[in-house]
Amino acid sequence: MRHVLRLREGDAVEIFNEKKEEAVGRVVKVGRCQVTVSVESVRRYTPQLPLIILACAIPKRSKFESIIEKAAELGADEIIPLLTERTEVRLKGDQLKKKSIRYQTVAVNAAKQSQRPDVPVIHPAGDFMAVLERLSREAVVVMPSLVGERPNILKAFQAISQPQKIAFLIGPEGDFTPQEYTLARDHKCVPVSLGETVLKVETAALVSVACACLYYRHV
Amino acid sequence: MRHVLRLREGDAVEIFNEKKEEAVGRVVKVGRCQVTVSVESVRRYTPQLPLIILACAIPKRSKFESIIEKAAELGADEIIPLLTERTEVRLKGDQLKKKSIRYQTVAVNAAKQSQRPDVPVIHPAGDFMAVLERLSREAVVVMPSLVGERPNILKAFQAISQPQKIAFLIGPEGDFTPQEYTLARDHKCVPVSLGETVLKVETAALVSVACACLYYRHV
Repeated sequence: MRHVLRLREGDAVEIFNEKKEEAVGRVVKVGRCQVTVSVESVRRYTPQLPLIILACAIPKRSKFESIIEKAAELGADEIIPLLTERTEVRLKGDQLKKKSIRYQTVAVNAAKQSQRPDVPVIHPAGDFMAVLERLSREAVVVMPSLVGERPNILKAFQAISQPQKIAFLIGPEGDFTPQEYTLARDHKCVPVSLGETVLKVETAALVSVACACLYYRHV
Repeated sequence: MRHVLRLREGDAVEIFNEKKEEAVGRVVKVGRCQVTVSVESVRRYTPQLPLIILACAIPKRSKFESIIEKAAELGADEIIPLLTERTEVRLKGDQLKKKSIRYQTVAVNAAKQSQRPDVPVIHPAGDFMAVLERLSREAVVVMPSLVGERPNILKAFQAISQPQKIAFLIGPEGDFTPQEYTLARDHKCVPVSLGETVLKVETAALVSVACACLYYRHV
């Protein structure tokens, strides 16, 4: 605010946070590491429904950052790094902390660039079972699958009318295990196909989010 | 064939080329730089309709390779690097030759990885006007647009029934110029929206191809 936006006392500002609150106010004091703003009004930005949640297996190298970038750009509301049986990347301690900060930065930048008015929430990484249990209580859970009966995602959407929350479970490079598929079925996940080719993790993630945005929100 | 597949005289092989021909045969001779195969039968692989053509502005750095990779993965049949007024990358001579070979390699690898039975054709880069004229003669041309009246791409597809060829014109980072938009309109391009956020070139390209595959081919 001081060095890039060069804000001074008395300047008008708009601020938003991750709780989808937007504040209008004026700069009261510009300190070296801190800027004081007097807030004149706060409004809650009303997100479009359905809320779109992406729970995606963490691929190797920095690909998860690219997944966050694309999902934020397209309009996902929440992103959950997913630990599956075949996920090889398991961060711990300092490495994990650094990564979390990096993920948040990527999300903020992508949100700005794509001109969306809010920033998606990046959750801490969660185990498949825990994430599945939580999501299936609060959302329609859709699972792009490489095996079994699975309608085209756009066809599947026709049978899911006006969901409040829709979540996607995206498997790792080696796919979900048969046990994970069984668990998902037991939790009423909707298996879908993303086409006739085998997609990479990041492609599957972004095709799912794009289809949901275009099908449900942008009518 | 010699070093990786370790083929020997008498081994059975399946070969395919970019003309969508598949041949079955046997290795007759393995030389140092050349393998001779006696072809027993050739069949033409019948592509799914509509043919999907992606004409996409060339972004900076190696992003066009990533566009080729994703488009090939998703099922595009032809890819045209597009030179628009605001395209900064213009390759020439040796650099262009090298790039073309690299593009083809990327397409072949992505096709293999995604388990599709053919490889998309990568055309030489073409100027907006020339590409527009050619495409509008032979395909329904769809143009994701950031300005003007433009229905959601999935809605727009409802009005385009059973096309034989569908082409997408994807603009550069700074968007198409007003002149290019006018030319496109004169050539009966269909303007569409890809959602409410502003997408990067590569994201717009891949959302377009994914939607076309899911909407028309994978019913």
